[in-house]
Amino acid sequence: MASSFGTAVRVSVFGQSHSPAIGCVVDGLPAGFVPDLDDLRSFMARRAPGRTGWTTPRREADEPRIVAGLNQRGETCGAPLAIIIENTDTRSRDYDDVLRIPRPGHADFTAQAKWHGHQDVPGGGHFSGRLTAPLCAAGGIARQMLAARGVRIAAHLLRVGSAADEPFCALAHDADSRRRLVGQLDALGDGRTFPVISMSAGDAMLAQIDDARSARDSIGGAVECVACGLPAGMGGPLFDGIESAIARIAFGVGAVKSLEFGAGADVAGRRGSQNNDPFDVVDGSYAPVKNDAGGNLGGITSGAPLLFRVAIKPTPSIAQPQRSVDIASGATTTLATHGRHDPCIAPRAVPVMEAVAALALLDSWLAFPPQAT
Amino acid sequence: MASSFGTAVRVSVFGQSHSPAIGCVVDGLPAGFVPDLDDLRSFMARRAPGRTGWTTPRREADEPRIVAGLNQRGETCGAPLAIIIENTDTRSRDYDDVLRIPRPGHADFTAQAKWHGHQDVPGGGHFSGRLTAPLCAAGGIARQMLAARGVRIAAHLLRVGSAADEPFCALAHDADSRRRLVGQLDALGDGRTFPVISMSAGDAMLAQIDDARSARDSIGGAVECVACGLPAGMGGPLFDGIESAIARIAFGVGAVKSLEFGAGADVAGRRGSQNNDPFDVVDGSYAPVKNDAGGNLGGITSGAPLLFRVAIKPTPSIAQPQRSVDIASGATTTLATHGRHDPCIAPRAVPVMEAVAALALLDSWLAFPPQAT
Amino acid sequence: MASSFGTAVRVSVFGQSHSPAIGCVVDGLPAGFVPDLDDLRSFMARRAPGRTGWTTPRREADEPRIVAGLNQRGETCGAPLAIIIENTDTRSRDYDDVLRIPRPGHADFTAQAKWHGHQDVPGGGHFSGRLTAPLCAAGGIARQMLAARGVRIAAHLLRVGSAADEPFCALAHDADSRRRLVGQLDALGDGRTFPVISMSAGDAMLAQIDDARSARDSIGGAVECVACGLPAGMGGPLFDGIESAIARIAFGVGAVKSLEFGAGADVAGRRGSQNNDPFDVVDGSYAPVKNDAGGNLGGITSGAPLLFRVAIKPTPSIAQPQRSVDIASGATTTLATHGRHDPCIAPRAVPVMEAVAALALLDSWLAFPPQAT
Amino acid sequence: MASSFGTAVRVSVFGQSHSPAIGCVVDGLPAGFVPDLDDLRSFMARRAPGRTGWTTPRREADEPRIVAGLNQRGETCGAPLAIIIENTDTRSRDYDDVLRIPRPGHADFTAQAKWHGHQDVPGGGHFSGRLTAPLCAAGGIARQMLAARGVRIAAHLLRVGSAADEPFCALAHDADSRRRLVGQLDALGDGRTFPVISMSAGDAMLAQIDDARSARDSIGGAVECVACGLPAGMGGPLFDGIESAIARIAFGVGAVKSLEFGAGADVAGRRGSQNNDPFDVVDGSYAPVKNDAGGNLGGITSGAPLLFRVAIKPTPSIAQPQRSVDIASGATTTLATHGRHDPCIAPRAVPVMEAVAALALLDSWLAFPPQAT
Repeated sequence: MASSFGTAVRVSVFGQSHSPAIGCVVDGLPAGFVPDLDDLRSFMARRAPGRTGWTTPRREADEPRIVAGLNQRGETCGAPLAIIIENTDTRSRDYDDVLRIPRPGHADFTAQAKWHGHQDVPGGGHFSGRLTAPLCAAGGIARQMLAARGVRIAAHLLRVGSAADEPFCALAHDADSRRRLVGQLDALGDGRTFPVISMSAGDAMLAQIDDARSARDSIGGAVECVACGLPAGMGGPLFDGIESAIARIAFGVGAVKSLEFGAGADVAGRRGSQNNDPFDVVDGSYAPVKNDAGGNLGGITSGAPLLFRVAIKPTPSIAQPQRSVDIASGATTTLATHGRHDPCIAPRAVPVMEAVAALALLDSWLAFPPQAT
Repeated sequence: MASSFGTAVRVSVFGQSHSPAIGCVVDGLPAGFVPDLDDLRSFMARRAPGRTGWTTPRREADEPRIVAGLNQRGETCGAPLAIIIENTDTRSRDYDDVLRIPRPGHADFTAQAKWHGHQDVPGGGHFSGRLTAPLCAAGGIARQMLAARGVRIAAHLLRVGSAADEPFCALAHDADSRRRLVGQLDALGDGRTFPVISMSAGDAMLAQIDDARSARDSIGGAVECVACGLPAGMGGPLFDGIESAIARIAFGVGAVKSLEFGAGADVAGRRGSQNNDPFDVVDGSYAPVKNDAGGNLGGITSGAPLLFRVAIKPTPSIAQPQRSVDIASGATTTLATHGRHDPCIAPRAVPVMEAVAALALLDSWLAFPPQAT
Repeated sequence: MASSFGTAVRVSVFGQSHSPAIGCVVDGLPAGFVPDLDDLRSFMARRAPGRTGWTTPRREADEPRIVAGLNQRGETCGAPLAIIIENTDTRSRDYDDVLRIPRPGHADFTAQAKWHGHQDVPGGGHFSGRLTAPLCAAGGIARQMLAARGVRIAAHLLRVGSAADEPFCALAHDADSRRRLVGQLDALGDGRTFPVISMSAGDAMLAQIDDARSARDSIGGAVECVACGLPAGMGGPLFDGIESAIARIAFGVGAVKSLEFGAGADVAGRRGSQNNDPFDVVDGSYAPVKNDAGGNLGGITSGAPLLFRVAIKPTPSIAQPQRSVDIASGATTTLATHGRHDPCIAPRAVPVMEAVAALALLDSWLAFPPQAT
Repeated sequence: MASSFGTAVRVSVFGQSHSPAIGCVVDGLPAGFVPDLDDLRSFMARRAPGRTGWTTPRREADEPRIVAGLNQRGETCGAPLAIIIENTDTRSRDYDDVLRIPRPGHADFTAQAKWHGHQDVPGGGHFSGRLTAPLCAAGGIARQMLAARGVRIAAHLLRVGSAADEPFCALAHDADSRRRLVGQLDALGDGRTFPVISMSAGDAMLAQIDDARSARDSIGGAVECVACGLPAGMGGPLFDGIESAIARIAFGVGAVKSLEFGAGADVAGRRGSQNNDPFDVVDGSYAPVKNDAGGNLGGITSGAPLLFRVAIKPTPSIAQPQRSVDIASGATTTLATHGRHDPCIAPRAVPVMEAVAALALLDSWLAFPPQAT
């Protein structure tokens, strides 16, 4: 099923940028959980457009309406949860030329190759970043369920252009590092609007975004995500390991072009003696003493923080003229995109990566838990 | 299904390092194809241990026995293909202590957390790199089927430690670059045993591997893989895009810690005007004029080469003493691994990544083809 | 995924009897098809309650709102189709006691055993027959797509209590029988409101339904469904055969208690020489000369009509007092159901079985077509 | 995946009648279970050919070789279980004409329509009843696992032609009926070779089989299966209910043409007051006082015995001449099948239905258990 994923918790996402509504169906959630709708709205607001200078002026209330899956007390009831978000602020005229002239960096070209004009074109249709709104609706609830199990998931903007935030203190796993990581998570949760740990790094990033916008251009970024408090023994061998589960969903987000766990790409240059995480007895239980493995070995959690990073490509839509082709006439042409677009999509990808992690981890926990003893 | 993947072509991998046999079942292959068994043996030999100085001395014939799925003329017949590889050279005593003392960097620790002693321990059990042999058996046949459709898949060792091969000439997409890429693929297929484009780079890599072995250590690497000749329009939106399909399988290989498509992690530092691939008319059809997107947009192929890179961690088993814990006594201990292990697993991961690509691409082609006009 | 099915065409159904809305997501439909919404409304009206004397007085407009999956020309666009039906006439007070006192024949008892009070109780929640409305919405569109491919699907009420309609003339396959079957299908499509071939049989059925209602009781029935015009060679071996695909969906409809294909249960008493369908040359192509196999052999279509029958249990909710238990007090008690219920649900199951057939057959055609030559 | 099924416990069956081997992969079994191989052999022997007068003279040892999935103590280890059965007594010449002249009642005709000559023809290829051997290997182990959880599964031959065994005493659910059912199960397990409760009924069945063989014909039958000791609350709503799970697998067995649960097809003629199973307090817990629902409501177990019946068609291969067509010449012809075939396949279907039940029930238990309180 092209627009769904999951084993025990199945998520199906639907909608197009300018369809009447977008939404999702989430099947397999345990019954008896009361979603906190205020928390869900806050979570989704972190992804929503139109809030600040660094996002598109398109305004969407993005109010998630839960139309099925709760009982009369507001608890999950064992039936699939269905969430609808009405599309309101759609201005299709911005996209009139898109069917004829594919926008560089967008899926216009490949959707045409696949569906020969039947695809829904305005706003990118089913490929629109707007589809991450229902992903966040589902993921926001999964994140609450994991929080109730003692799991804390947080992401931050690791990089925009050449400006970098301090990384999560999650590759080390000693007591001091764990304390510092908690401090980072607390800082990110203190109500700040720009999702960085270091305020000065944030300022540098905002400056780069502003420069890109001024140049009628866009800029890329990177997001780092961590999940703390997972039990050891979650996940499965081979293709349903934790890394595979996260990878499949993360690369379903169009802007993601790379994914690394733990030490990530750095392992290519390392010796085993440096890369291996030794084990020790910590507070009476066994644990790795550092965490270059990123919280899992062989796809199964180790109890250390699950840690991954993604690179987010610069928004393809830019106001600068770009070279493309006119499919109707066969002529080379020049295209300048006039829609409303973020100069940098990476800040809004931060809660999306938390949603990706939450959905992958809740599913893995329920589908492939540590076996009962 | 934890040990399987795929939508139209489903692959299920079974076996443990020291079980009587390992193998795979491949369901959904088109009927009427005659696998070339000599080619399959050659392909699998590229992954097999025991061949040269840089691999483990464990010797396995790794002869794939097709026990079902062919008719009397040797054609695929619509029924699932089942392939068995007998395990012969198993020396379980090497692993006697592993259940008690988890090896750093291995899944011993997490498998214990999951199955509490029921897991199969010797040789890493189901987590063994040996499970990539049936993956290559399945992938080797998928690769043949794709070759018959005009698709050429090749990978090379991009890096070992600090030594790097020249990259595939696949991010550019002009006529000269395409010619150079063909030259690189031809070179890789000329019978050379060490899978690099540049011989001098290969020598530098072998020197680094030799240094690691001498230090009773191991070393990491990176593999780059390309697929040329794919039609535009293959793959699906969102979670069954080409990138998701490759990602799920690639991260099912235990040693993979990062995955990038096209420009990959570099996109974080780029402007949109630099990163977008403009379109033009090339030889009468539309195409991107460069390929930083790595051959797909929105998960659907663009007709340009599909390009990805993975980082391969250094072999966890090293002869140097490492710190671990004795689960029986609760004491910290020191472990030196005496089994037969590769000082660098990355060269053997080269055909494995070709198998990963072949299986993901054949499946995407059959499950999510360009729609018929 | 508990509330979904399908391989190439995936259907996910959501909603509860008294949730804000019910609906479905249908993924994998070919792009470029324009659903006929008037035809869809007519199809769903055949299932809708509140129309005539023989159904529940609950009135629901059952207007399907397609909120995603169409492009601006009203064509399917490759993205999942999402359909919402608002629940309007909900009277939850009718069901106040149901959580405490499970209704015999309903899933109240088993839902309580599964979810311990978290299940949504009013109206049967997710187990309500109302969930067949989105099934008909999805199936109505699948039926249109099959019609465009030359497939005609029709069902009729074969039996109510002891009154029986004439069966489809589909077990024979000679020219005269095929002509008679067409006549039966034409009759069923002539606008008649009670779905029987023989009007006098219909009168006898209505009399039995009226008797049951007068006795504050309900009555069971049977539905027979046929699909003509399918190509030979659709479906797969073993567990994804046509029979398995229909069976899985049909038994997902709560009232279905038996399912037979072709000669069905009668085969137990037959000789092979009687049961086998010989082959012959018919109009220049090969075909079975009779159709006791019900249009398929080994799960793959033969080109003869696909034929199946289901038994539909009497509506469990009856106004007569019935014995049950009060879960709060532990006491045996007597329950009379005061909700609005059909005395016979079987007539409304007729379009539902057409929907079941359409969804199973469209999916099998797309997922397991005859291989291209 | 055409030849697999299951959600938490996935079974993939492979092989053809005359391929080198047949077998299955079973993924998702809990770790730590020691299969009883003697019990498994006994179970499979009940299905095996060549034992008595009423089966084909083809002799197969049908020795299941477990090549993966057990650890060194013989416990399941979390990795997929892989079982191989070598084909030994294959006599392909018996089937030389089958590709040209499809046998009535077999899948030869439909396999040709699907694969145009690429299918494996001898012995029915992938459609052979021999594929029920690996199904029994998987099901035999699932049955042992369920036995360890207190579940008893048994089937018997309910009917052959016009001769009928006494039915299971499982539609009533009072103390006396439950005692009688236990007696019936004990009788079936006392070592008798012909799987009937009533010896005289068995004699009548054997006489009918003998008559059919003498007439160079075959005869159909019916099998009834029961599972006792299941907890209430297993299974899921809608399409993954217990009935759907059993149905999908049961109709994957080629000879099955009808399936009924509990009162089955009889419900069509019943009033609700008769068909509903009232609830009462039994031994301190709530239970239905009769079991016309066949042990489930809405697809979820009620705690009463799960009860189903299937009709098994007469063996299609008969020595009598039958009408068919010669695909090469286009001429009508006459075919007499000379292979080794059972005059009645129904007795061998008895353990197969136990395997079907065991696999569906173990999977439902693990994938959709009663939620923890």
